[in-house]
Amino acid sequence: MTKIACVNGNFLPENDASISIFDRGFLFGDGIYEAVSILGGKLIDVKPHLARLDRSLHAVGMSAPYSHAEIIELLRELVAQNNMQEGLLYFQITRGVAPRAFHFPADSVRQTFVAFTLPMPLIDRPDVLEGVKLVSVPEQRWARRDIKSICLLPQCLGKQVAVEQGGYEALMVEDGMVTEGTSSSAYIIKDNTLITRPLSNAILPGVTRRAIMALAKQDNIKIDERLFSLEEAYQADEACITAASNFIMPVVDIDGHKIGEGKPGPVVNRLRELYIEEMRKSAM
Amino acid sequence: MTKIACVNGNFLPENDASISIFDRGFLFGDGIYEAVSILGGKLIDVKPHLARLDRSLHAVGMSAPYSHAEIIELLRELVAQNNMQEGLLYFQITRGVAPRAFHFPADSVRQTFVAFTLPMPLIDRPDVLEGVKLVSVPEQRWARRDIKSICLLPQCLGKQVAVEQGGYEALMVEDGMVTEGTSSSAYIIKDNTLITRPLSNAILPGVTRRAIMALAKQDNIKIDERLFSLEEAYQADEACITAASNFIMPVVDIDGHKIGEGKPGPVVNRLRELYIEEMRKSAM
Repeated sequence: MTKIACVNGNFLPENDASISIFDRGFLFGDGIYEAVSILGGKLIDVKPHLARLDRSLHAVGMSAPYSHAEIIELLRELVAQNNMQEGLLYFQITRGVAPRAFHFPADSVRQTFVAFTLPMPLIDRPDVLEGVKLVSVPEQRWARRDIKSICLLPQCLGKQVAVEQGGYEALMVEDGMVTEGTSSSAYIIKDNTLITRPLSNAILPGVTRRAIMALAKQDNIKIDERLFSLEEAYQADEACITAASNFIMPVVDIDGHKIGEGKPGPVVNRLRELYIEEMRKSAM
Repeated sequence: MTKIACVNGNFLPENDASISIFDRGFLFGDGIYEAVSILGGKLIDVKPHLARLDRSLHAVGMSAPYSHAEIIELLRELVAQNNMQEGLLYFQITRGVAPRAFHFPADSVRQTFVAFTLPMPLIDRPDVLEGVKLVSVPEQRWARRDIKSICLLPQCLGKQVAVEQGGYEALMVEDGMVTEGTSSSAYIIKDNTLITRPLSNAILPGVTRRAIMALAKQDNIKIDERLFSLEEAYQADEACITAASNFIMPVVDIDGHKIGEGKPGPVVNRLRELYIEEMRKSAM
């Protein structure tokens, strides 16, 4: 089946989905994106994704070309047209098409909206059972990592380093302290306490992070939002990352250091179970 | 006349020039660019631009889809098809079209090449006679500003701040010290000495900067490559910025502080004269 993408409200085969070379997303990385998980054909936690979209857009002085309701309608149509059951819905808004100039274009320039599907297993996957390996890399990103912009070259470079070393994800480290993964939030568990960096300009406010933290609280898992070092991560009892693309993924190796027993641990497994249960309930 | 752009070696009207939404330039800002000046229909200083292109590509593990000779041929064809006399030739290479994943695509994926013209006066322009105003903004970019990547959102945000305050360019400041402009190298002149930040990961190795520094040396203008503060810039005798888009532009105001006499000074005017003379000679 030919996959269908959405470009400015038009649904068309992915191979025909194109944008102008003068789109500011292509020339300046001048855009914001989101990725929403799909389970059983339904959208997972879409409202906080749309809230974060607004937050990012606002931070860069950009508007959305559609209301939340319209975006949800487009995303649902995309799910239907692709008969999608499980995976990610990706969508991106850029500042539109205009003659190349760094400053913002005229208000009359309409933002570009693009969306497509990335079908993939989210529930039954071997890496969840085995846990994954992370590779640390230097944090190289800009000052506003809380904005989910498409300027992702540093993240691409980091992920590539990890993949070349047989890793699943790269863990970015600044002044000895972990910030986050290139496309995930990062956590360690020590003495039954879930430790993760507090929100700031230094990390993205993860939507999955938000849900996991709420579930941990409800489940009386101790939480400590603080900076943690790479050295501390090596010595953790458990570790994990969260993202829309893997929910919560156990980490069993960082830079060749075995984490805990070298297999997924009870706190992470418990949180994953709670997360999937909660998301199945609230999917819409 | 319809302007013509080049996409992967094909010449077509700009309105028809498009790329896939799956181009990594559009999804990740995963690309490198250059802009070469055109004077009298000829390419200015193209060799150092191509050398810098190679340097940037290499730094991000990317290849070029064409040789230098082929790129020059495509650029000349673009100049011819647009009957272009004066302005900028913009060209960009991205890591190509592939299913969205942060790590690099398979080696078989060919890089995307896009080029277009930005006709504009470079020699006779009123702002050169009057000098321009700069506005300082916080430096927010990533750790590798020496790579000319298309992840330009911080630069767009900076330029927008400047434009909203009636400025021509924003001057980025880190720890009190000037790095550079959002799309230009920055200099001050004090006691007949040309002062500019030395090359490092903190700034782009400007091609126009390179030529201006060589000309200053030949002309026995004293050069001091060192960090300078914003406060020092306010007190300078003269100031200027350089870029392919304006050669060397006198700065007469920074954040409302009048620089020197508030009009273009002798050192900057002299360097501009030398630069234009030299470039007319070496254009090809």
